[in-house]
Amino acid sequence: MTRVGIIGGTGYAGGELARILATHPDVEIAAMTSRQNAGKKVQESHPYLKGYLDLNFTEKISETPDLDLVFVATPHGVAMKEVPALLEQGIKAIDLSGDYRLHDVDVYQKWYGHEHTDVDNLQDAVYGLPEFFRDEIKGADLVANPGCYATSIILACGPLLKSGLVGNDIIVDAKSGTSGAGMVPSARTHHSTCGESVIPYSVGSHRHTPEIEMAVDRFAGSHAKVTFVPNLVPIVRGIISSCYFGLEKEASQEDIDSIYESQYGKETFVHYVPEPSIRAVVASNHAQVSARVLGDKVVAFGVVDNLVKGASGQAVQCMNLMLGLDEKTGLDFPGLGV
Amino acid sequence: MTRVGIIGGTGYAGGELARILATHPDVEIAAMTSRQNAGKKVQESHPYLKGYLDLNFTEKISETPDLDLVFVATPHGVAMKEVPALLEQGIKAIDLSGDYRLHDVDVYQKWYGHEHTDVDNLQDAVYGLPEFFRDEIKGADLVANPGCYATSIILACGPLLKSGLVGNDIIVDAKSGTSGAGMVPSARTHHSTCGESVIPYSVGSHRHTPEIEMAVDRFAGSHAKVTFVPNLVPIVRGIISSCYFGLEKEASQEDIDSIYESQYGKETFVHYVPEPSIRAVVASNHAQVSARVLGDKVVAFGVVDNLVKGASGQAVQCMNLMLGLDEKTGLDFPGLGV
Amino acid sequence: MTRVGIIGGTGYAGGELARILATHPDVEIAAMTSRQNAGKKVQESHPYLKGYLDLNFTEKISETPDLDLVFVATPHGVAMKEVPALLEQGIKAIDLSGDYRLHDVDVYQKWYGHEHTDVDNLQDAVYGLPEFFRDEIKGADLVANPGCYATSIILACGPLLKSGLVGNDIIVDAKSGTSGAGMVPSARTHHSTCGESVIPYSVGSHRHTPEIEMAVDRFAGSHAKVTFVPNLVPIVRGIISSCYFGLEKEASQEDIDSIYESQYGKETFVHYVPEPSIRAVVASNHAQVSARVLGDKVVAFGVVDNLVKGASGQAVQCMNLMLGLDEKTGLDFPGLGV
Amino acid sequence: MTRVGIIGGTGYAGGELARILATHPDVEIAAMTSRQNAGKKVQESHPYLKGYLDLNFTEKISETPDLDLVFVATPHGVAMKEVPALLEQGIKAIDLSGDYRLHDVDVYQKWYGHEHTDVDNLQDAVYGLPEFFRDEIKGADLVANPGCYATSIILACGPLLKSGLVGNDIIVDAKSGTSGAGMVPSARTHHSTCGESVIPYSVGSHRHTPEIEMAVDRFAGSHAKVTFVPNLVPIVRGIISSCYFGLEKEASQEDIDSIYESQYGKETFVHYVPEPSIRAVVASNHAQVSARVLGDKVVAFGVVDNLVKGASGQAVQCMNLMLGLDEKTGLDFPGLGV
Repeated sequence: MTRVGIIGGTGYAGGELARILATHPDVEIAAMTSRQNAGKKVQESHPYLKGYLDLNFTEKISETPDLDLVFVATPHGVAMKEVPALLEQGIKAIDLSGDYRLHDVDVYQKWYGHEHTDVDNLQDAVYGLPEFFRDEIKGADLVANPGCYATSIILACGPLLKSGLVGNDIIVDAKSGTSGAGMVPSARTHHSTCGESVIPYSVGSHRHTPEIEMAVDRFAGSHAKVTFVPNLVPIVRGIISSCYFGLEKEASQEDIDSIYESQYGKETFVHYVPEPSIRAVVASNHAQVSARVLGDKVVAFGVVDNLVKGASGQAVQCMNLMLGLDEKTGLDFPGLGV
Repeated sequence: MTRVGIIGGTGYAGGELARILATHPDVEIAAMTSRQNAGKKVQESHPYLKGYLDLNFTEKISETPDLDLVFVATPHGVAMKEVPALLEQGIKAIDLSGDYRLHDVDVYQKWYGHEHTDVDNLQDAVYGLPEFFRDEIKGADLVANPGCYATSIILACGPLLKSGLVGNDIIVDAKSGTSGAGMVPSARTHHSTCGESVIPYSVGSHRHTPEIEMAVDRFAGSHAKVTFVPNLVPIVRGIISSCYFGLEKEASQEDIDSIYESQYGKETFVHYVPEPSIRAVVASNHAQVSARVLGDKVVAFGVVDNLVKGASGQAVQCMNLMLGLDEKTGLDFPGLGV
Repeated sequence: MTRVGIIGGTGYAGGELARILATHPDVEIAAMTSRQNAGKKVQESHPYLKGYLDLNFTEKISETPDLDLVFVATPHGVAMKEVPALLEQGIKAIDLSGDYRLHDVDVYQKWYGHEHTDVDNLQDAVYGLPEFFRDEIKGADLVANPGCYATSIILACGPLLKSGLVGNDIIVDAKSGTSGAGMVPSARTHHSTCGESVIPYSVGSHRHTPEIEMAVDRFAGSHAKVTFVPNLVPIVRGIISSCYFGLEKEASQEDIDSIYESQYGKETFVHYVPEPSIRAVVASNHAQVSARVLGDKVVAFGVVDNLVKGASGQAVQCMNLMLGLDEKTGLDFPGLGV
Repeated sequence: MTRVGIIGGTGYAGGELARILATHPDVEIAAMTSRQNAGKKVQESHPYLKGYLDLNFTEKISETPDLDLVFVATPHGVAMKEVPALLEQGIKAIDLSGDYRLHDVDVYQKWYGHEHTDVDNLQDAVYGLPEFFRDEIKGADLVANPGCYATSIILACGPLLKSGLVGNDIIVDAKSGTSGAGMVPSARTHHSTCGESVIPYSVGSHRHTPEIEMAVDRFAGSHAKVTFVPNLVPIVRGIISSCYFGLEKEASQEDIDSIYESQYGKETFVHYVPEPSIRAVVASNHAQVSARVLGDKVVAFGVVDNLVKGASGQAVQCMNLMLGLDEKTGLDFPGLGV
């Protein structure tokens, strides 16, 4: 059994990692850290783990010996302090925060507003989107797990950008459930505020923008310009990102379909479908992608459960690859549907 | 024009008072206080008031001269510090908090956990439920506006208790929308927590219990025992309280119907209906009551918008009575329905 | 008192008309028709009207004499059969369906799939968006009330298109609450389907598209191309339409702000705001518009309650103009906020 | 591999069975029937099954040879026509409808309003609640799977009734998500109706009442009287049933706790917890039970996912027992938590 640890065990991503790993056949959760709950039983914070995980939170990951791999599921700024020590001890790391996603340290500092203190590892971190970077992930010691918005958007946009049929000026109108905002209550996620509303936020300034642009650049062959407007919608889990492109060459619906089908036809977790559905993927690592030609434009939809394929499930998918396991181990179950 | 003030203008009850009073023909909002927003425009906190109220928050109500009546819409413990000075100046007061609802100071101190510093006025405060205490309200200088749960429950239970047909051992299972919890974000009202759940809370210890029992005692003629279990449900506005009684005498559905109809038939705001509907009352001062005989039991439902008939609308109804106005002035509009 | 009738009184738009008109000081609801409920009390279908409207549904509008104005609140295809007779009798008409919105009969027949049987009146119908066509509405006998999506979109786009700063190739990603789909249950509006989802629908084929394009053409000075993707979101009331433009000339945020402020600064019901909020307008005839420069693009948001400013409230606003009343009569109340 | 069939494959219970069985290690789904979708791919109706089940719906279960066990997931009245033929061929059957739950044929006919045509098997059917009837289920050929409400209520009430501490006059106020109403759209489950409401329905007449009373009778030792009021709440999955008892003997909270802990301490799927949470069980076969002493009363809460432990998951749990498998096979995963 591979021994894994989770730094940041009380948050949604940490809890979701534990939920998934609790039934993973090849992995043992050996440690979960929490500053505020150190010493307490994990199942007090995450009652759904009762019967699946008998573990107490620790304060520091270094208290637990013989770890093989550590997930960092903390707010940004923490991973860059934890990862160097892990890698030095030969422990692989998967960071679910934004710390290692942007290879350009200047871009990081501009968007996150503080210095990056681990520039060396920043260069080597592999972007953990298996459907596009599978081989790099297999050999990686440090994986930067994509953000939930970025995952849904890159899955939707990648094939089309690679095709050269569309321009690289993309408008993304994304809708996210409230669990994407994490477990800390706020005015915006207060039920009375958001429960009967749709709230655009961080218009033009969301930190996922440079991450999306960086990934998109790799497909587009030239600098992509992403106009990104996220919206909070009153659902708990799920993201649907609607991505609008201009067609640069004539293309039929069938042309577009075949581009996506050839990209995703053999994938386990990404499905090209005629009509996207959040409920079809919720509680699973599956994603749906759909695209429609609308005159001289194309709209592509990317749909994920923000906590699974958009966070912890994808991190486990990356872990499987890093450990040489079948990538669907512990993740091979369908979405809820209803 | 009567000049009114609102102490505690940033919260939901304060905002809702301003929303209702903004179109009231006989009243002018002369002051709204807010410690945190003093000096700022009211419509920055409450954008829906744009075009209806051009006012800045002040820090203290005493900054505004010539007030005729003041609403206190603050957390409990504040009104008892503000009310004595108001009454001394001949300013009438309506307290929307729990400070003046319990005539028994010992009961207050037991449930609220701190001393009551205005015991004199506590004795004289009138309980502001117009459908049962209309005449007392008309002559009152200080009205204790009922809680939202209590309003829905007393409207549902009052006629039946007065009838003598039922025992005084009542089980109340109440369901409230999240706006009842106020505007301060918390773990329970965080959308990801409550958005797809029903959460019983304060089981056996909710502070509305003694208020309900006190009011119920007046109808029952002997001490009523109320088992009160409130539940948070994922709607923004609305309460439905389901009240279960044992029949002590035989009674048909028609008997029960006629008890309620004779109580509420002439009321403007309380309607006895065959099937209760939250949406029929939302955004209005109307309440619905419904009752069904189930063998040797009766279930009575009380339905209000917690922010209107359950708080600010009822306070305005009381104000109208205290000022000698028609009680429906400024409140005479139907619920949304959809 | 002006005597008005409502054809199609059981649906959401008909019920909402009655809700608004019930407290209108200058108007009496003299008739509401319903094929299925003819002879029954209106308040059985719309319990929130109890105490406000004592009327029975009739089968045909012609049963009621001496009407001054009739609202047609039926599915498309009905108004074109009812309106000619009304106009011949000198009764003014406001159609809330799509029958008279498109002046080009060929466009109508293409999008609605059936013949238009009242082409003459189609030419003369005035598009009922007061903020842009106030004078025409004042003199009209037949007003085509705009659709809910179109209202939100045109309010958001109009000022910018008129400014000449932006191109006429617009992407609109709109989000509507479920009441926009009407009162007939369907698979898509079944709570288990839509309650935890965001569902794009009629992608590229929604019937509001030509209406939006027609209106937009009038502002753009040349043919506008609207890529319109509506989404069903799990809220009951409210629309937010996010409209994306390319800037054709350089413009600062201040430039954009001043365009909108000069357009809407004196309007009663349309407010240019820094952050749009559905809850600020819900249950009212108010609309919010907001716009942000994002590099070489602008996103403009239009927010309305789909049943009020997006349907019945706007129809009453038009009625007021047609009757020579102050346009805000009966509509002068703020949105809920919470 | 055991070959199983599902009669009624398009509904929610049928789809959920397929979702669970798709990853069950010892079972193969050999047939799913659907009158309306016969011949079509299952994954067209249930897109979340893509990659998990490559099967076409058939019209009749008899088209598929060599079945070992069949689930009947149809509206009531169908199973009694299908089950006799299955049992005659030696095929075990689990009925998820109400057809075989009530041993008393007169009670069935009274509540369901039509004749029962398979009285013989009705006598022999075993009530499929493993936590109370595990041994009977192991030996059964025909299992009547409990209703979703009944499961939550009996789990909450059983231990207390067996203890003799409480009376047998129980008030149950239950709250169910909308998926409990099935996949057929209706006025009540229309999002605009129920999305911002709590709707009591079938007050005093819900068909689960006799099922609950029958089960409860077995624990109470005398006839139990259940006052059952179900409420529709705007969540997709989940039930919480609040059950109110009178204490007949003095009992402390600790006494009550120990009763439940000794009943459920060794159960895999039922957990006695201090605070019940729907989200902790959603998407899993787990149930939570909680109980609180409130003076001379006790309130017990029972919480399940209505489609899993309240329907298809429990049916698979029963299947495992009937097949001699570990009862948690294919069901051993935690609830979502968030």
